[in-house]
Amino acid sequence: MSVVRNLTELGQDSYGRPGLMHMTIAGAVHHGMKEMEVWMQTFAPNSGTPIHRHECEEVFITLKGHGTLYLSRSRELDAPGEPEEFQIYPNATFTIPVDSVHQVRNTNQGEDLQVVVTISRPPMKSFIYKEWSTPHAEAVYEPREWDKEDKLSSASQQC
Amino acid sequence: MSVVRNLTELGQDSYGRPGLMHMTIAGAVHHGMKEMEVWMQTFAPNSGTPIHRHECEEVFITLKGHGTLYLSRSRELDAPGEPEEFQIYPNATFTIPVDSVHQVRNTNQGEDLQVVVTISRPPMKSFIYKEWSTPHAEAVYEPREWDKEDKLSSASQQC
Ligand SMILES: [Zn+2]
Ligand SMILES: [Zn+2]
Repeated sequence: MSVVRNLTELGQDSYGRPGLMHMTIAGAVHHGMKEMEVWMQTFAPNSGTPIHRHECEEVFITLKGHGTLYLSRSRELDAPGEPEEFQIYPNATFTIPVDSVHQVRNTNQGEDLQVVVTISRPPMKSFIYKEWSTPHAEAVYEPREWDKEDKLSSASQQC
Repeated sequence: MSVVRNLTELGQDSYGRPGLMHMTIAGAVHHGMKEMEVWMQTFAPNSGTPIHRHECEEVFITLKGHGTLYLSRSRELDAPGEPEEFQIYPNATFTIPVDSVHQVRNTNQGEDLQVVVTISRPPMKSFIYKEWSTPHAEAVYEPREWDKEDKLSSASQQC
């Protein structure tokens, strides 16, 4: 793998998720990173992340487009409940409170939402919620699609 | 601190380093991050980082401009010696091998070099080399200027 690589030439894939183009820029499964991981993700209109929580830290930087961050910060109730909503815009940056339940969606029409995402403790270990009313105890652990070794596509092998 | 902040409105400062504008987007000293840190740095022509090494992981994404990555990957000799040189360009991304001796400089004229930098194990703990011929054993630990609590400027307090 070259020391310096051109982001625009790196492999990206939807990994079976409609509306998503995901690129692991530097990661555990793909590149041997041990302590952090950096992604670029592009969401088509009306697509986004699942509702989820994780113990790792996560920081987003918005390169282009608009969207919405949904966030439930309290863990006192049995379920996340209705989330707070925050607008996302170009150059918006947000840090997800550890273990909070959150979701990022491209709620805009006609324009992709593109973000750089950094996480600690790679690879990502998320607990996925079916809905905001799903109890915390029923959230399901799922490895992320791009980290499933049997699904490593030829796109991801272009370092 | 607002959940979603506009990068272009966050405080940045040279922290006494000529040619540098540094912004800690999400960090240990400034924001309570524990496992990773994200910066934006802008280097004027002929400025750059010190020659240094660190145990943490570090990933760069180039937003704009051009420059040079200097890298000495071998630790077999007593000193880094002459580094390899790699060209940096817009959208260039590079991951610094842990504990390697490296430096990033804006070797271009007339154009700033702007990068997003992510590190693990914050805050940054670097060993600084006076020159590439400086023995590893003589590299000096220095906290980064933006993490020195007594130097937190009013700019950095704008979350
Ligand atoms: Zn997340
Ligand atoms: Zn470094």
